[in-house]
Order: sequence, then structure tokens, then C-alpha cells
Amino acid sequence: MRRRRSRLTPEAYAAGILGGDLVMLSRAITLVESSLPSDRAIAGTLISQLMPHTGNSFRLGITGVPGVGKSTFIDSFGSHLTQKGLKVAVLAIDPTSQVSRGSILGDKTRMKHLSMNPQAFIRPSPAGDSLGGVTRKTREALLLCEAAGFDYVIVETVGVGQSETAVHGMIDFFLLLALPNAGDELQGIKKGIMEMADGMLINKSDGEMIPAARKAKVQFGQALRLFPLPESGWRPQVQLVSAINRDGLSETQEMIEQYREICKENGYWDQRRKSQSIQWMEDSIEDLLLRSFYGNSDIQSKMEAMKKAVLAQSQSPIQAAEKLVDDWLNLRKD
Amino acid sequence: MRRRRSRLTPEAYAAGILGGDLVMLSRAITLVESSLPSDRAIAGTLISQLMPHTGNSFRLGITGVPGVGKSTFIDSFGSHLTQKGLKVAVLAIDPTSQVSRGSILGDKTRMKHLSMNPQAFIRPSPAGDSLGGVTRKTREALLLCEAAGFDYVIVETVGVGQSETAVHGMIDFFLLLALPNAGDELQGIKKGIMEMADGMLINKSDGEMIPAARKAKVQFGQALRLFPLPESGWRPQVQLVSAINRDGLSETQEMIEQYREICKENGYWDQRRKSQSIQWMEDSIEDLLLRSFYGNSDIQSKMEAMKKAVLAQSQSPIQAAEKLVDDWLNLRKD
Repeated sequence: MRRRRSRLTPEAYAAGILGGDLVMLSRAITLVESSLPSDRAIAGTLISQLMPHTGNSFRLGITGVPGVGKSTFIDSFGSHLTQKGLKVAVLAIDPTSQVSRGSILGDKTRMKHLSMNPQAFIRPSPAGDSLGGVTRKTREALLLCEAAGFDYVIVETVGVGQSETAVHGMIDFFLLLALPNAGDELQGIKKGIMEMADGMLINKSDGEMIPAARKAKVQFGQALRLFPLPESGWRPQVQLVSAINRDGLSETQEMIEQYREICKENGYWDQRRKSQSIQWMEDSIEDLLLRSFYGNSDIQSKMEAMKKAVLAQSQSPIQAAEKLVDDWLNLRKD
Repeated sequence: MRRRRSRLTPEAYAAGILGGDLVMLSRAITLVESSLPSDRAIAGTLISQLMPHTGNSFRLGITGVPGVGKSTFIDSFGSHLTQKGLKVAVLAIDPTSQVSRGSILGDKTRMKHLSMNPQAFIRPSPAGDSLGGVTRKTREALLLCEAAGFDYVIVETVGVGQSETAVHGMIDFFLLLALPNAGDELQGIKKGIMEMADGMLINKSDGEMIPAARKAKVQFGQALRLFPLPESGWRPQVQLVSAINRDGLSETQEMIEQYREICKENGYWDQRRKSQSIQWMEDSIEDLLLRSFYGNSDIQSKMEAMKKAVLAQSQSPIQAAEKLVDDWLNLRKD
């Protein structure tokens, strides 16, 4: 049996993180992943203390359909960045892993070079959680990584769907990976996701696939130009890479650094981060309302009776919800 | 300029729906898709009135990665069911279409046979909405379709991700579509999604693909047997279909009807629907809490000041959320 480690004070976590202590960073991420009220209180104070030390990393989102080679790309690109003297943290968002975690082939060997690299830090997706929960935890983990001095924080989304919208709400640049075999309905990449991309990479552009990759680059470039110019003033670019051969990594870094330069100059960088702060506040409100409601002891006892009424079909689920919420709001008036 | 149609009474909607009037069904779905408080009130009463007339359809969820041929399959399978004298409704869940709707090729010609069929009713995904919003609206639309007498309500999820968990919470049988080219990391299908499937179809099993499809059937069958026997007592089956050639449709219907028979007998059918009712109540609670909070006029005025403080970084988003929620809870005590 494993003994649960005792919690430290917010100050102790903060000091460790600001000193670049990765064990302390890990423990603090475990703290922010907890839903216990006592842990949430420590985490809230810790985040507030660290806020002045955040904001300095490049927050890079990476997505693409399963099989496109996201893990291999992050492994290669992350290694490329560390060779340039940069520190890289990798976080994953995967709310589909509710029943049991990770892809069918397992997570362990996904990033074999980066996981051995002392300039890198890899943290898998928090398990068994809703998208809302994963979003909150990832956002807080991202800030902890920033405070620990990482130059790049990469947020990987696994799967193609709603989690991209959540990630888009916390990153500076969204990189969409695709395969050389375009044409096939643009590989089923959804318009909504292409519209969020700040850049696209055609991965596996090597050997016999190079002609197809070049064609895909033209097709995706055309598709991207169908969208109006984004608010950032930056027209998304398409580049060829081969994660496995480590080709195109410098060009990828140049592309995203150029984006940072342009957007810092035209003010979009700050504007995007500001609107993300508001989104974060709104997500926190939702979290607090639910915890306050379900944490109420009167509600907890009424809830059992109401569930029975719903199961007996003497109440519709909507009516039952209305009664419980009304009761809770009236309770607070006394 | 289009004039907004006036709303009817809940009784008028209910009478139309119970009489099988599809125009009235459409208008009622538009009503439940609205977030206006006045519309929510009518919708709540309507749902309660219709509840005794719901529960009789087969609620079939269909998912699969983009490009697998979901629309073609639903078009063919839906037509097959109507030929057997059954009425079929199709609803879609697509929360990735936040920025702009639908797949890159457009929604219009997705189900060309079924859309012309008088025994069928097709309703696309509500636009510009969060997953939570889409879930609530789809669940209510499903009940309206049931009350209108449809034998099958098919809920299609577009994309592979969080929306599958939402759909799983409202359907009786989850059908996962795949392609004959298995082996390639099982086509990137996530373990969490396979674990939710009650049955799998290898689509595009025709012509030269038949040998590959047979191999895929064996591989997916093996993968499914790695999971423990589901609570339903039903071991998920894999079948070959060709939606375009309309092959394997009778076998698909037999599979799911057999599931219904077994699960009705062993009690799992009712049990699953009951736990879905509880989930529905919990989702409604969340919806009501948020609407009550954001609808409060004191909160609305404080919110503006708090947003400014967050943007000026004089408050962290978490602290700002805590203050607003505390204020709201205290307000209600007066």
C-alpha cells in the first residue's frame, strides 16, 4: 500500500517551483489535480503567489487525428528545442480516457527521447475526469510549468473534438498535424479545427511520400486561404516535416517564433492572453458553483430522495433539478 | 428579414407531436434549442407533459473517426429500417462546429435518400454551442422524437472525442464504425471509445477490400475480447457492412434487436435508462445554477468591474471567480 504524501504549504511549493525543482513541480501538479476542498485551497493560494512569475513561456498547442504522429513529433521537436538550450514541458489533454486511460497501445513509450532529457518535463493527462476538470487542471499545470522556468509549454490534445476548443483557450499558437494523403476529404479534418490552427505541418513527409506531401501542402494551403484573415493578422502557414527523420524542425521553430514576434508587435499576443484570462475566470465560476451546491449537506440529503423520485418516474429529471436548485437558493436566504 | 415565429402553448406543441405532425416536431425542437428563459419555461412544461409518452424508441448512437462513412451508413441503414415499416429520426451532435458549422464538405447532401423519405426525420446539430448545451438540446430533441412515435432515434456523433461520452449517456446501443484497414494501431480508435461500443461495423467491406475487412473483423474482435464482459452481459460483436452497396444491413438490425431482447430480459435495459435519468438531472442542475448566477443583476454589474481587475492583473482569475461566487451566495442570504 502506498502512503499518501502529506501536503506542503503554498510557500514551500512556490519556493521549490521557482527554484526549478522538478520533483516539487510534479508534486504541485498532483496538488492542482486534486478536487479535495483542502487541496483546492492550497492550490488557489499557490497559483496566486506564482501568477507574477507566469506568462513568459511560449504556450504551444498541438493536435491532429489519431495516427498522425503527434507523440513522435513532440518527441523530435521537443528534443530540437532542448538542443537550442530551451527548456520544454509537455502536458496532455485526453478527456476520452474516462473509462481507462490512454491509447490502446499505451502511453509509456510515446516520447522515448524527451522522457530521458533533463531539460524536459512530461506530464500525462489527468485520469478519469470530465473535460471541464481536465481543462482546469491543465491550465493550472501550465502556469506551474511557466513559473518553473520552462521556455515552451506544449499542450497535446489526443483525439479530434471538443478538447481542441478547450486547448485553444489556453495556448498562444495552435499547430495542426496532418498526413501527406490529403484530398481524401482533407483527411476528415473538421473545418472548425482548421479554423483554429495558426500553422499546419504535413508529417511523415519523407521517402516515397514527398510528392504526395507537396501536393497536400498546396491543398491545405488553399483550404486555409478560404478562411478570412484571422484576428492575429497572421496567415496560417503549411510546412512539411518528418518527425522520424527530424526534418523541418528548425523551420517549424522559425514559423512559430515569427508568429510570436508579429503578434507581440501588433498587440494580438496580449489581447489573446487577456481574453483567455476571462475564460479562465468563467470556468472557475462554474467549478465553484457546482462544488458549493454539491458540498451542501441539506442538498446531499435531499438529493437521495430526489434521485429515488426520478427513478420511480414520479418526477422528470428537469423538474427534480429545478426543485433542488430552488431549494438551495432558498436555503441561503435564511 | 425573417420574422421570428411566435411560440405556441406547451399543450399545442404536445398535441401536434403526439399526432405525429413533423412540422410541429421541428418547431418544438427549435424551442428546446433556445436558451431564452421564456422558451426554457415552455420547453420544461412540454417535456414534462410528453414524458409519459417517451421511452418506446430504440436509441441508437453511431460514431467513428472522420471519413469512416457514418452519413452514408445512416442513409442506407435508415432507409433499410423504413422499408421494414419503421420510422427513423436522426439527430447529430457536433460541438466542434463552434466557429462555423459542419464538415468542410457541407451538410446538405450527407443523407440524400433518407432526407427525401417521409418515414424519416433528420435534424442537424444545434449550431454555435458548447458540448453541455448540445447535450441538453439533443437529449430533449430525442424525447420529442420519441413522443412523435419514431421507432428508432439515431444520434450521430461527428468526430471522436468527448462528445461520445455525452452520447453514451443518452442512448441504448452504441455502434462504432471502422474501416477495413485495421492493424494501423487499430486505426487510432481510442480504447475509451471501443470500451463504450456495444457493436462494431467494418464499413466499406466491398470489392477488393473484403479480405482486409475479414482480417479487420478478427483483429477488432480480439481487441474487444480484451475488455471484461460489460455490465449488460452482452459481448460486443463485429460485423462487415458496405453502406454504399447496402450489404450487411439486415444483420446489423438483427444484432441490435437481439441486444434489446437480451437486455430487456436481464434488466440491464431499464437499469441503463435509469442511470441516464440521473445523469440528465445532474446536467440540468449545472445548467440551472449557471443561468441563475449569470442572470442575477447584481452579479452582472459586479462582473464588469471584476473583468477589468482580471485584465489589469490586479486579481487572478481564480480569486475573481471566488469573490463573485461568494458575493452571490451572500446576496441570497439577505
